[in-house]
Amino acid sequence: MLIKNDIDIISSSDFAKLVHVSPEQFRKDLSYFGEFGKRGVGYETAYLQSELEKILGVDQQRNVALIGAGQLGGALLNYPDFSQNNINITTAFDSDPGKIGSIVNGIEIKDIERLKEYISKSNIEICILCVPAKNVQRVAKMVVDAGVHAILNFTSVMLNVPENVFVSNIDMSSEIERLVFFLNKQ
Amino acid sequence: MLIKNDIDIISSSDFAKLVHVSPEQFRKDLSYFGEFGKRGVGYETAYLQSELEKILGVDQQRNVALIGAGQLGGALLNYPDFSQNNINITTAFDSDPGKIGSIVNGIEIKDIERLKEYISKSNIEICILCVPAKNVQRVAKMVVDAGVHAILNFTSVMLNVPENVFVSNIDMSSEIERLVFFLNKQ
Repeated sequence: MLIKNDIDIISSSDFAKLVHVSPEQFRKDLSYFGEFGKRGVGYETAYLQSELEKILGVDQQRNVALIGAGQLGGALLNYPDFSQNNINITTAFDSDPGKIGSIVNGIEIKDIERLKEYISKSNIEICILCVPAKNVQRVAKMVVDAGVHAILNFTSVMLNVPENVFVSNIDMSSEIERLVFFLNKQ
Repeated sequence: MLIKNDIDIISSSDFAKLVHVSPEQFRKDLSYFGEFGKRGVGYETAYLQSELEKILGVDQQRNVALIGAGQLGGALLNYPDFSQNNINITTAFDSDPGKIGSIVNGIEIKDIERLKEYISKSNIEICILCVPAKNVQRVAKMVVDAGVHAILNFTSVMLNVPENVFVSNIDMSSEIERLVFFLNKQ
């Protein structure tokens, strides 16, 4: 984010403000992992990013499958921000016979009934669910049964999954409702 | 969410679990706004939803403009979940002469240079920014200058806006990175 904003060097106090902690806490937390900044100068953002990526384990490419190749799903297949962040959507699935076999943004849409087979073959670790809300719980079960432990859920349905499966929810309607609530408070 | 999961009635203890508070705190907080449940029975989810929508002010339709009619933006123009939640994208803007004047999902793409004029005319209160990261700060300034106080930002750039403007960020790459971090921890 800082790099995208063309900030090459940042002080610990400015960085701490961004993440809403005290500068002391920020320096202490980072020092737990090593020495990243220069006293009196600050942190080189590009270096700090690459070191943090290693610590977080996001420096390696991960294979991601998309389920639901509708308009939103199709757009995600070509989302430039993903490839810039080592996120590689390698496979896409749908249940619509009209979509299966077609090519969307360079990726062939496969039959969701063959999910398990492809996921084990392609070492897919994360599934993005862009299916209609009414189907999402059933699809989540298929994904979990196929051995996937990480789901990005684009519906507002709360998924019922085993404890060792991690779900991240992107609920766009709720985000807009938060904005509406803010406008009403003003 | 409960309604989408076909749950008609829910007890305060089950509801409290979902929102990670104690049942006592849940009942106390809701009672602040009125009587919504029946002792020993629970809450009718449809009734509770409509009452909460009134309290939050999300029961009325709000006019929303989309800025950036690329693939992701175009998909949002037709996103069924929005219309189900009183979210009405009435106008869309782009800077690409190849897109201006075209119709995407029933909405004519307008020239972003005419943003201010349309926003004041159409009573637009919320703007969704689906523009490339490198342009988003400039577009956010245009939106704020046009009088909008609520922004849904689809880039990972942290927007610099006046204090009375509320920004909600949907950072899909960061959500996937959270999932990667979880997988690495396992």
